[in-house]
Amino acid sequence: MNAKVVEQSRTITTELVLPNDTNPHGTMFGGSLLSVMDKCASICARRHAGRVSVTAAIDSVEFHEPLRLGDVLRVEAWVNRAFTSSMEIEVLVSSEDMHSRELKQANRAFFTFVAIDRNGRPVAVPALRPETKEEERRYTQAGMRREIRLYLSGRLKLKDAPLVREDLIATLQSRNL
Amino acid sequence: MNAKVVEQSRTITTELVLPNDTNPHGTMFGGSLLSVMDKCASICARRHAGRVSVTAAIDSVEFHEPLRLGDVLRVEAWVNRAFTSSMEIEVLVSSEDMHSRELKQANRAFFTFVAIDRNGRPVAVPALRPETKEEERRYTQAGMRREIRLYLSGRLKLKDAPLVREDLIATLQSRNL
Amino acid sequence: MNAKVVEQSRTITTELVLPNDTNPHGTMFGGSLLSVMDKCASICARRHAGRVSVTAAIDSVEFHEPLRLGDVLRVEAWVNRAFTSSMEIEVLVSSEDMHSRELKQANRAFFTFVAIDRNGRPVAVPALRPETKEEERRYTQAGMRREIRLYLSGRLKLKDAPLVREDLIATLQSRNL
Amino acid sequence: MNAKVVEQSRTITTELVLPNDTNPHGTMFGGSLLSVMDKCASICARRHAGRVSVTAAIDSVEFHEPLRLGDVLRVEAWVNRAFTSSMEIEVLVSSEDMHSRELKQANRAFFTFVAIDRNGRPVAVPALRPETKEEERRYTQAGMRREIRLYLSGRLKLKDAPLVREDLIATLQSRNL
Amino acid sequence: MNAKVVEQSRTITTELVLPNDTNPHGTMFGGSLLSVMDKCASICARRHAGRVSVTAAIDSVEFHEPLRLGDVLRVEAWVNRAFTSSMEIEVLVSSEDMHSRELKQANRAFFTFVAIDRNGRPVAVPALRPETKEEERRYTQAGMRREIRLYLSGRLKLKDAPLVREDLIATLQSRNL
Amino acid sequence: MNAKVVEQSRTITTELVLPNDTNPHGTMFGGSLLSVMDKCASICARRHAGRVSVTAAIDSVEFHEPLRLGDVLRVEAWVNRAFTSSMEIEVLVSSEDMHSRELKQANRAFFTFVAIDRNGRPVAVPALRPETKEEERRYTQAGMRREIRLYLSGRLKLKDAPLVREDLIATLQSRNL
Repeated sequence: MNAKVVEQSRTITTELVLPNDTNPHGTMFGGSLLSVMDKCASICARRHAGRVSVTAAIDSVEFHEPLRLGDVLRVEAWVNRAFTSSMEIEVLVSSEDMHSRELKQANRAFFTFVAIDRNGRPVAVPALRPETKEEERRYTQAGMRREIRLYLSGRLKLKDAPLVREDLIATLQSRNL
Repeated sequence: MNAKVVEQSRTITTELVLPNDTNPHGTMFGGSLLSVMDKCASICARRHAGRVSVTAAIDSVEFHEPLRLGDVLRVEAWVNRAFTSSMEIEVLVSSEDMHSRELKQANRAFFTFVAIDRNGRPVAVPALRPETKEEERRYTQAGMRREIRLYLSGRLKLKDAPLVREDLIATLQSRNL
Repeated sequence: MNAKVVEQSRTITTELVLPNDTNPHGTMFGGSLLSVMDKCASICARRHAGRVSVTAAIDSVEFHEPLRLGDVLRVEAWVNRAFTSSMEIEVLVSSEDMHSRELKQANRAFFTFVAIDRNGRPVAVPALRPETKEEERRYTQAGMRREIRLYLSGRLKLKDAPLVREDLIATLQSRNL
Repeated sequence: MNAKVVEQSRTITTELVLPNDTNPHGTMFGGSLLSVMDKCASICARRHAGRVSVTAAIDSVEFHEPLRLGDVLRVEAWVNRAFTSSMEIEVLVSSEDMHSRELKQANRAFFTFVAIDRNGRPVAVPALRPETKEEERRYTQAGMRREIRLYLSGRLKLKDAPLVREDLIATLQSRNL
Repeated sequence: MNAKVVEQSRTITTELVLPNDTNPHGTMFGGSLLSVMDKCASICARRHAGRVSVTAAIDSVEFHEPLRLGDVLRVEAWVNRAFTSSMEIEVLVSSEDMHSRELKQANRAFFTFVAIDRNGRPVAVPALRPETKEEERRYTQAGMRREIRLYLSGRLKLKDAPLVREDLIATLQSRNL
Repeated sequence: MNAKVVEQSRTITTELVLPNDTNPHGTMFGGSLLSVMDKCASICARRHAGRVSVTAAIDSVEFHEPLRLGDVLRVEAWVNRAFTSSMEIEVLVSSEDMHSRELKQANRAFFTFVAIDRNGRPVAVPALRPETKEEERRYTQAGMRREIRLYLSGRLKLKDAPLVREDLIATLQSRNL
């Protein structure tokens, strides 16, 4: 299976915030937004894997700006890294000003998808080959986030998680602690 | 504002997995499930705060069991801890066997909601008073998760996050690292 | 097949009135409410029967209080009585005050569900064993309502409907007619 | 306010049973069907009253034939009788054979709607003037059903319900009881 | 296969404009309206053909009047002409004044449907036999529109499209060009 | 108001065909597809105009390939030309092969949108400045299609429609008629 690059699966979608997506204050429900993000990420995963892929985990969802009825949303998803049968997909949501067309970042999250066969069993996916400095940085951080996830759920020992250890030390140093 | 207890806002809902919630393999989309969880959590937050509350963050969503078309889901949400104007809500989703009525845990996540006034500005919420050992444990861990979130996003220094430091040390020791 | 008790199938669900559930006056459509009630009742019937169950009849739906956009609804369904292959399910809908959390009853109805096999044919369901005085009262009344339904549709003679006759006489007496 | 005739408000609608309307057995949920019936009845009530009208009660819903995915439904609603501010609307649902176009009656129900003003208060509606023998029969029966509803809910004494008394006697006689 | 007449497949449906059908200005999306029209036309085609039929083309959709939240729509579809395996269906949408019940035409379009077998292949449909002058006029124009469609897409030569040629000449003459 | 170029408003969206979008044969309803196209076109129009825009007309919709449950759709909309207050938007829908990621064109249509102010009245929009040979061709053809639309609806005389006349002659010549 040949490695693939980010551009082969990048997925962009454009959405409109409809009445049923909003609470009585006129702002979008978190769940409706996550639903839009999950659908965009699942298409991206499927494009990379060439197979139906299902959500396995979601991390670090932060809602920076309330989205409003009638807002136009730009949703973008790309693969940060592929592991044996799973992929980390980053999803970015921005709302767009109707006049200036300026984008305001509203939300970001990391999705983990697993490619499955017809019987629902995990299958191998192509590796991701980063092409730019930025893609390399994301590739490394995705490995780190995976180690943290596995470590936090008790499925990995810290001594088998070299990326996390280095990062912890570097973080402490960079923040003068 | 008087403190409230967990039982005053615990929210239970029961759902059916419908065709539009599923992919062509017949399993439920992660986004549809998160939408159900977010709605349940938002009612729970509103019950605790006595006000409309909006999603601010979501952490550590893990999908343990694929949910299928026609499955009956039991969704339960409760407050782990209240901070100034935010609350950590834990949501648990289980699917129920039609014959034995046994529950299989399918998904868990931590939602952070913020109570807002009519102009969308954060407002103070009642404190949460834990009543059982289990509720106390959750109360402490919610504080820890909040410190980690603020620390990871650079809004808190490690020296101002005593819960995280103690926990890190304890974890390393308990795992013999 | 062992008899079951009410608590084994009691179903609670919590709903939010969304924009598409309302007419231009901002109050909830009767049909949207009935849809929510039917789904809750069908899960309750399935829990009692241990099988997929379908709606056969609905009686005495009364809407006491208009429900509004953004209202939180508490929907509760339980089995009043089981017959050969059918069950009478009572459903109660209340709306909840956001501040006081007081419940206001909005709607009540009686649903009759029939348990079916894979070919859509009716199959036997477990009996219901009432445990409290209140459950016994409901059990008796469910039998009465069934006799009335069958009598009104011409499928039962009054002489084969002893509960209805007693009740009619008792009612006339208690109301001084 | 001039009386109106049945044809001025008769409402016909045609529907298709979609995947989300069905349970995993491929038959339509009772709640989805009631939702379709309520919408049709509410348009009929609005046409008669010339005002927004809301559901107040539903009686005697019986499901005769299971409806299936892809079925074409013919839904017809008409006013049986108007009272001060309420109307009894009868709704009939039939499914249509694709080849023979024969109709099979699937469901019938009686809806009571109340016309409301901008503040949600009941307002007077035009009387209904029956034009045929069949419409007269329905007009009389609608009065009877209203008396029974009010009598059963304790809002009417039997001595103030002459239609019910006559009917009860006639029924007993016609059935040789 | 016997020819059929227009009345055998005429389809009428009545709809309500719901919140999710509207933009933030409170007027109905063109796409929501087309969705309603397509569903009505597909039932009409299926009634004429006695088979599932799928949309092949849509022409000349003009939106004359904006439709608003809460509007009652009358949608009517009928067959103008049947060809080998396709049918031209005309769909008319009107909105109805709540008080006067006057109809205001909002939209008209021509849909082409193709009847298909279980494998999705086109199958022959009954001919349409026009009964009135108006139906004859529509029958002729439907043939003309079909020639234009085939001509414009390069699948027909003008010399094989006699209806178009006559019409072009007649049009030029009637408009004094 | 400065002219704008095509790239300033090009809109891309990615969709998944869900169960409720399909008929019992598993292929997508024309109306669901048009709904997706209209939403994409309305965002494109709004980006060009900097204002809410509403659908005024749709032309020449042809469905080339049936779309199926689970298909990933690529929808692309761009402005061909702007007139005083209206814009012609072309929309292209392709389905994507999961393995090869090859695109198969499924549908194309021309939408006319009108920009409106807060009172629903048409307002002027920026001109479109074509930048490539292809954009110039589309710009010219959009003018032609507009003349044909106005001519066919009787709002324009052929002598005031020079583009149509030239084109008619050229077409007849190029096709040897």
